This record gives sequence, C-alpha cells and structure tokens, in this order.
Amino acid sequence: MNQALARRAADHLERMRAGQPLIHNMTNYVTVNFVANMLLAVGASPVMAHAAEEVEEMVSLSSALVLNIGTLDEAWLASMLRAGRRAGELGRPIVLDPVGTGATRMRTEAAQSMLAELSVTLVRGNASEILALAGGGAQTRGVDTADEVEAALEPAARLARERQTVVVITGECDAITDGERIWRVHNGHPLMGRVTGSGCAVSAVIAAFAAVEPDPVSATASALACYCLAGEMAMEGEPGPGTFLVRFQDALHGLTPDAVARGARISEM
Amino acid sequence: MNQALARRAADHLERMRAGQPLIHNMTNYVTVNFVANMLLAVGASPVMAHAAEEVEEMVSLSSALVLNIGTLDEAWLASMLRAGRRAGELGRPIVLDPVGTGATRMRTEAAQSMLAELSVTLVRGNASEILALAGGGAQTRGVDTADEVEAALEPAARLARERQTVVVITGECDAITDGERIWRVHNGHPLMGRVTGSGCAVSAVIAAFAAVEPDPVSATASALACYCLAGEMAMEGEPGPGTFLVRFQDALHGLTPDAVARGARISEM
Amino acid sequence: MNQALARRAADHLERMRAGQPLIHNMTNYVTVNFVANMLLAVGASPVMAHAAEEVEEMVSLSSALVLNIGTLDEAWLASMLRAGRRAGELGRPIVLDPVGTGATRMRTEAAQSMLAELSVTLVRGNASEILALAGGGAQTRGVDTADEVEAALEPAARLARERQTVVVITGECDAITDGERIWRVHNGHPLMGRVTGSGCAVSAVIAAFAAVEPDPVSATASALACYCLAGEMAMEGEPGPGTFLVRFQDALHGLTPDAVARGARISEM
Repeated sequence: MNQALARRAADHLERMRAGQPLIHNMTNYVTVNFVANMLLAVGASPVMAHAAEEVEEMVSLSSALVLNIGTLDEAWLASMLRAGRRAGELGRPIVLDPVGTGATRMRTEAAQSMLAELSVTLVRGNASEILALAGGGAQTRGVDTADEVEAALEPAARLARERQTVVVITGECDAITDGERIWRVHNGHPLMGRVTGSGCAVSAVIAAFAAVEPDPVSATASALACYCLAGEMAMEGEPGPGTFLVRFQDALHGLTPDAVARGARISEM
Repeated sequence: MNQALARRAADHLERMRAGQPLIHNMTNYVTVNFVANMLLAVGASPVMAHAAEEVEEMVSLSSALVLNIGTLDEAWLASMLRAGRRAGELGRPIVLDPVGTGATRMRTEAAQSMLAELSVTLVRGNASEILALAGGGAQTRGVDTADEVEAALEPAARLARERQTVVVITGECDAITDGERIWRVHNGHPLMGRVTGSGCAVSAVIAAFAAVEPDPVSATASALACYCLAGEMAMEGEPGPGTFLVRFQDALHGLTPDAVARGARISEM
Repeated sequence: MNQALARRAADHLERMRAGQPLIHNMTNYVTVNFVANMLLAVGASPVMAHAAEEVEEMVSLSSALVLNIGTLDEAWLASMLRAGRRAGELGRPIVLDPVGTGATRMRTEAAQSMLAELSVTLVRGNASEILALAGGGAQTRGVDTADEVEAALEPAARLARERQTVVVITGECDAITDGERIWRVHNGHPLMGRVTGSGCAVSAVIAAFAAVEPDPVSATASALACYCLAGEMAMEGEPGPGTFLVRFQDALHGLTPDAVARGARISEM
C-alpha cells in the first residue's frame, strides 16, 4: 500500500469538505435519496434537476455533474446529453454511471452515446457494465469478485484510451485506469453491495472529489478509499442491511482525515 | 395452523434464495427504494425499468414482473401494459398492486384494464382496493381490520374466478383466494402498515416467491408468512417507525428457514 | 415564550391526529419517501398523485395540497397548477415549497406563477428562496443563520401582503408572517438541515396542521414547534445523520401533546 496516496486521500477529503462542492445529480429515482444523504454525509452539497429547461443553468451553478442511467427514458436521456454538453463547455467534471449497460440495448446505446458525445471525465461501473461498454461481453450479477474485476481491466484500459477518459471498475477490489496507469483501492467489504444504491452513491462521491482534485485517477482513488473505509467501519460485526445503511451514513459523516490517512489502502501498478 | 404449509414456506424461502430471481419492478417513486432493499434483504435481485424502449427486454431477463400503480401516469401505464403483454408471452408471473384503486377513476380503470388485458398471476391489495376492483364499494383507509378483510373475501373470490387470477387481501389478517381455495396467513403486526411501503414491498416479495413456485396461492402464502414473520420480529418491543424500518430489513435478511418452519402461521379453509 | 401558544400547539397536534387528514403531495422524487414516512409518523395520511388525469379527483379527496418544486418539469408544473386550481375552488389549504427558487429561472418563474394563479395558503422556504420570490436577491446555501432569516423578514412580509398569503422562513430560527403579524419558533437544532428532506417534510407537516386549523400562522407555528421539538429530541447526543433520521421519525411518532405543551417555544412580535 502507498502511504503517500493514503495521506493524499485525507487531504482530498479535507479540501472537499472545505469547499462543499455542489454536485448536480441526474440519477435514478430508486436510490436518489440515499445518494443525496451520502453526499451530505461526506460533506458535499447535492442538487437534483432533470428538466430540459433548467439543466444547463443548474450545471453552471454546480462543480460536477453525475449522469446515472439507472432509470432512463428518452426525455431524461435528452436532458442528460444537454447537461453534459454544457458541463463540457464549462470544463466541469462529468461522472457517468452506466447502470445496467449490457442488460438492454437502450442502456448500452445511451452509455455509448454519452461517451461519444460528451467529455466524460470518468465512468464508474461494475465489471459487466464496463465490459459491455468496452464491447466485451460476459454478464455478471451482483458484486463482482476480484477475479471478475481483473478480467475487465484490459478492456477497461482500452476503453479509457479510446475515449480519453478514466474507467473505474468497482467490485470486491476496485481498479482505476486512464489507459496508462492502473490504481487499486483495497478498502471495502464484500457485503456493501447487498444494499441498493451503494454503487450510485459512490459515483456521486467520486464526483465530489473530482470537483476539488484535477487528476481524476487520484480523485477517484481518494473517494473510493474514504467511501469504502466508512463501509468497512459500518460493517463491523456484520449487522443486517438496515442497520448497515444507517451506520454507513454515520461513518461517512464521522470519517476523519486521520482515519483516512491511517486506513486508506491505495496501490499503484 | 398447518405445519406442512409452514415447512413449505421454509422450503420456498430456501429455493428463492438459491435462485436469487431477478424481479422487474414497475412501481411508484414513493417507496421504490424500500422495495429494492426489501427484495435484496429477502434474497432476490431487484431491477427497475419503465421506458417503453426497454421494458420488453428487461422483462425477458427477469423471473417475474411487478406492476404497482401507486404513482401512475399515461406514459407509465402504456409501458406497464407493454411489459405485461411480454411477460404473458414468456409465461412470467405478473403481480398487480392496484394502489389507490377506488380513489380515482384513472387508477380503477388502469387496474381493471390490466386485469382484462394481461395474464395477471395475482393481485394484492387492501380490502378497499380489492372491493373497488371487484365492483364492490365501501372505502376503507389505513390497515384493514380482520372484519374488513373477511367482508372483501366473497367479492375477491368472485373476481378471482372471473379473471382467472389469484386475489390477495392484506390487512390485520391476510387472505388468499383463487376462487376455489381460501388460505389465510396469520402472521404480522397491526402497526406494520404505519410505515410507507410495507404493502408495495410485500407485493414484490410475493413476486420473488412466485418466480420459484408455480402455484401462486402457495407462493403467496409462503411469501406473506416470511415477510410478516420478519415484521413481527422487528415489532418486538413496539419501536418507533424509524427503528422498525431498520429492524424489518435486518429481520428479513436474517430470517432462517428454521424460524419460518416454526413461526409461519398459514391455514387452509 | 408564549405558554398559551405552546398549549395551542399541543391541542393542534391532538386534533390533527384525531382527524388523520389525507395530505396530497405533489413533491420531488428525492425526498418523497421521507415525506410520506414523516406524515405517517406525525399522525397524518399521505397520498401522492401527479397525473393530469387524476390530480383534481385526488385533491377533492384530500384535506390539503402540498406543491413542492424540488424536481420540477413542464408536465408536473401543469399538473400542479391544475391541482392547485381545484384546491382553490374547494377551499383546501395549499402549501407551496419553492425548492431552489432563485437557482434557475424555471423554478423562480414556476413559484411565482403558482403564487399569482393559485390561492396559496402559505409558502415555506429558506431565506434565499423567499428573497428570490420576493424579488430580492442574495443567494444563501444550506441552513440559514438567524441573521439571514431576519434579513429576509421584511421582504417576506411585503410578499405576504402583496400575495395575500403567509410566508414562512425556516433556518436556525423560524419566522412566520402574514404581512402584519410576525411569529417565531425557536425550537430545532442547527444540524437538522444536514439530512436531505427535512425542509420538504416540514412543509408537508405544516399542511397537515393547516388541514385542521384555519389560521395558517397559528397552524404553521404549531407544526414547526412539534416538528422541531422532535428534531431536538432526535439530535440529543449529536448522533450521525443516519441515526438521526431514524430517531427523528421515532420522536415525531412518539411526541406527546404534554411534551409539546412543555417544550414548544413560540413567540409573537
């Protein structure tokens, strides 16, 4: 593990909290409440807006944009593209969460058109979503094992180079690549994925860190380490999923830079 | 109480958890997060999708479909019918939750058109919703008393025969009928209905059991017994509603087949 | 502090619980689950409906209407105006929660057109939203300090007179004005705003009290005192935000009229 990167994660957390960046979320209605509460817990400010008439204005007020296609339809897709183009003009980080890519043609095409048309700063998905985006294939389900994450890494690196973006695969172990560098985050607990929204919320938290740190690989590693460290703390004693959700929110809110400097487990390859 | 049916409920729970059936939910935005978390807690896999462009594909990937009209509009209704027709072609179980039927004409007509046009496997509602669907009448509100459930039973049985479906009335006591058989589930706690989403989530959990058990009467009885038994456990000491929601999710996740075999209270008439 | 007003708050709580008024919420999808659960916790009955085809019927069944523009779009705005006109014809209280007014033109115009076209009983927002509505200006963010609330008071009183409505500014201290009277509620905890939905839920709770008390200033003061007193109780020991949300729901449900009579801190000026 790299101690300097752990200290950097602590520093990123402090800077993010000092800035309280406003994060514009265009996300699914399933987990949106959890996403908002986790952004507040980590120290950022969430805002949600999807109407074509206002997304450009909202993007301009915000420090980063999250595009999550978990419950997509045509009107939302059009608004997302509109918001994403404005974010690109303004140089705001865009985080794409391609929920369900590979499951339906609509989702796969939507995620691919966002990658093609927008300056997506980073894409965060599980191994099967990333493989589907990269034109690979095998479907996985639930939380991906470390092996599944590894298997998706080469296609992810290729995708990152082709699209000039950063690709983040989360699962039992998390990997981040810009096509050249590969970083890994070893924090987390395999049961974290057993509640709905843990993926959606981490994408939003990554956006909050990307709002204060220009290197998206480093911002993502720091965000993942903080988020997953809070998850580990909340998982102590392996509580049921209801108790876990409550504790997770508490732990993210109570997470200190010191705990991050000590507990973040980030490695570079 | 029928001990064989209690053991069967335990068996259904085990089979459902082994299969982790993917349940496609087209449900209201009020309680969708709770529905997703309760499906995960019981051991199934939730997915949500409502766009006309993708519902048929999503249905084909799923093991059962839930149609819940709690926050309906015209576009959703059209997508629900589309998804429902595809589910029928594929022989997938369809669970209809006719939230608010009888309150507005739109809801009553929507629920009736679904019953008329789709191969609805089962309908689950409270007494007033079932009465409104059956063409009966008196409005009730909140959790129905055992008497109200009984009063709705004859119209429910008629509706089941007419529509070749299974009708489930939940309230202080739950009743299930296919027009011939009447089964009852005696588990539960009267305060369970004092949190939003307890009805929506049970409809989804029933769908998960119907995905592994072809007799919808038996699948429903098992699902209701498991769900309501977890509710009883969570209600111990009569906690406030916030604490109850957390414990309910924990209890459903921690529910063992043994506890179900001992605690399920199902009777046939 | 005015003891008579504290006893009145206790009386309002009892009357509201006895009546269990049905509150029709047209609100954002971010916090709608929390709003529903808090309405249930306080003793009211929530219903949600947004389709143009049914909002008028639903309003006619309800005792009050909440219009919350937190995730607005054109179709929702049209439905809100339709529901609001029907509520006006029926003499039902209308509570407007102008979330994000001042942030985008769409929201500012939507809130202003509701105030112009509907018989809005009361508007509840934070200082910056109220200033934006009143044609004033400086943006604030997060929970407003007592000074920010004071600074918005004169514009709020002017707005109340112009629009013949009641304006409620919530923040570190809460102020209520009909343009003549100014009441203040001193209950609450500054960290209450660190969870999503605390503002949306209080607007809905105010609507429940306005359903049983014809003076909107008094209804609001009682609702705010009850809600914020429960918040104080839940904040004891300054728990993390996840634990706070659970306890808040418990505390609102468990709040006794006696505790309100002793703990409500309402003053008239």
